[in-house]
Amino acid sequence: LLSATIATLSERALVQRLRARMSTSAPHVTLGIGDDAAVIEPERGAADVITTDTLVEHVHFRRDWTSAFDIGHKALAVNLSDLAAMGATPRASLLSLALPSDFALEDFDALIDGFATLAEQSGAVVIGGNLTRSPGPLVVDGTAIGHVRRRRVLRRDTARPGDELYVTGAPGSAAVGLAVLQSGRARGAFEHALADCVMRYERPEARWRAASIVARSGASLAAMDLSDGLADAAAQMAEASGIGVVIDAALVPISTGVTLWASLSGRSGTDIALAGGEDYELVFAVRPRQRRRFLAAMRRSQDLVVTRVGRFVPEPGAWLENGGVRTPLPSGFSHFA
Amino acid sequence: LLSATIATLSERALVQRLRARMSTSAPHVTLGIGDDAAVIEPERGAADVITTDTLVEHVHFRRDWTSAFDIGHKALAVNLSDLAAMGATPRASLLSLALPSDFALEDFDALIDGFATLAEQSGAVVIGGNLTRSPGPLVVDGTAIGHVRRRRVLRRDTARPGDELYVTGAPGSAAVGLAVLQSGRARGAFEHALADCVMRYERPEARWRAASIVARSGASLAAMDLSDGLADAAAQMAEASGIGVVIDAALVPISTGVTLWASLSGRSGTDIALAGGEDYELVFAVRPRQRRRFLAAMRRSQDLVVTRVGRFVPEPGAWLENGGVRTPLPSGFSHFA
Repeated sequence: LLSATIATLSERALVQRLRARMSTSAPHVTLGIGDDAAVIEPERGAADVITTDTLVEHVHFRRDWTSAFDIGHKALAVNLSDLAAMGATPRASLLSLALPSDFALEDFDALIDGFATLAEQSGAVVIGGNLTRSPGPLVVDGTAIGHVRRRRVLRRDTARPGDELYVTGAPGSAAVGLAVLQSGRARGAFEHALADCVMRYERPEARWRAASIVARSGASLAAMDLSDGLADAAAQMAEASGIGVVIDAALVPISTGVTLWASLSGRSGTDIALAGGEDYELVFAVRPRQRRRFLAAMRRSQDLVVTRVGRFVPEPGAWLENGGVRTPLPSGFSHFA
Repeated sequence: LLSATIATLSERALVQRLRARMSTSAPHVTLGIGDDAAVIEPERGAADVITTDTLVEHVHFRRDWTSAFDIGHKALAVNLSDLAAMGATPRASLLSLALPSDFALEDFDALIDGFATLAEQSGAVVIGGNLTRSPGPLVVDGTAIGHVRRRRVLRRDTARPGDELYVTGAPGSAAVGLAVLQSGRARGAFEHALADCVMRYERPEARWRAASIVARSGASLAAMDLSDGLADAAAQMAEASGIGVVIDAALVPISTGVTLWASLSGRSGTDIALAGGEDYELVFAVRPRQRRRFLAAMRRSQDLVVTRVGRFVPEPGAWLENGGVRTPLPSGFSHFA
């Protein structure tokens, strides 16, 4: 039996199918899906935070590696991670899909479910979007909207010399997950720690809960997300703030999966943890006298480990300190194509 | 000499190039391009209006027919049209591009300029977006944000029996423009009226100025944009409002270009004006006692013709009335692929 494709339905029928699979109402949503545009009520006394990110098949995911549910999840998670990096609380989202005509209806449903499940968990009510055909790859474009009190915005250019640098989770795990998938090993044969890395690649958790608690506490005023790796995020934050940063190699947290993959591939676990991207964890700059307040706020975010990995310094630049020796952090430059 | 492609630059260099070509600051923009997400100040006493729309190469445009500037213009115009249909005033926009690696840098610049020029004219300051590679078609995803006073939102489900139906501009012109391009005629050989239709297809004007004036006047409370044609918009507005609509064939405005193309192609000008899509004009439902106020508000929108073409009726359905005979309006149903 051939499974039905999206080509058997009209655009309106697909939109109806999508609406039937998710809750699209909330007190602040005046008009959701169904009119020319969505209308939402701003949060009193707060600023609006908006971000958008695109996942393109063959560039950001492969359909034979990642389930449609996980693609939908990730399309929202990467945006919630950007909201988190501003300290914003999610309140709305939009989903735009460019769909190849051979896309199966059951995959359409699963992708919607992945996006909608995370939307419900995070409060990012789906208020709109767009469906269109694609003559090429599947393109999934997510947009997320949040709110934050003006004085609590976590910018990236507000780190100061003397601030400590903290990172959530275990950076490098997602990069190991991708490498495991690329290695072509059978899924059933993954060691538990590697399976965990694959999970972190395929279904990243965005740290919006922790970030919104930290922002509200006022314990940090500078944060960034880790989409291009820990070294890159630390260096960008330092550059934007007009200062420098030193990461202490001995403090970088290395997950069991990263350690295992490092030994299997003959690389250094610290290098993987510094350079690996797509973790969607966060870095925070924290003044030493705010340390206790920051750690108390993080403890309220269930199950989320945070580690001090370095400090900001007056002289511009980004270094790794290892046994008293400083070397420049690897640069993130790469050509676009 | 081969022209440079986007593949010669890094993503950051492309973002810098983009930022250098546009103004991205405004009093209500707290943080624009450059951080993890944008932060904007909501308009006091107003609701936020948000919409997004995607243009996919080979589906919505062809690069050999439409200039990169016009593609950029259209990517914002279609979203401004959706804002207009809600009565919203534009205040911010986001631009996401999935770029084939052979995309020329000069086309990149021109596309950005097309988007940025309209952003500046309309007040939809570019606050963010995304750049990524595409292994297939060029995909241009625009998002627009506006504001409108809560009681002035132009919904589509608030038409009432007895309301008059108005349309802006000359519907069908864009469809004729597309047909002219598809006919393969040489550009230099277009009659003036057909060249005007091509212009309306390639560089549609969104009616945000008129819509925001009408919304503020309170003279209409129901509007929709015409992306899928006049007949479709009228029928959808009636259906959403739980009533019916009758379009008077004798009142439908027919542009010189539509008349000319109708005679060249052996079709009826009225049919083209009713069924042709992509005009991005607006329909309004207006209570008869608000007519003078509505027309006065429209007159304040320079150069924009508005025509009464029908009326809403209690019994559900959508009809064309021609010489006293009613026939059902053509349905807009079509398969997705």
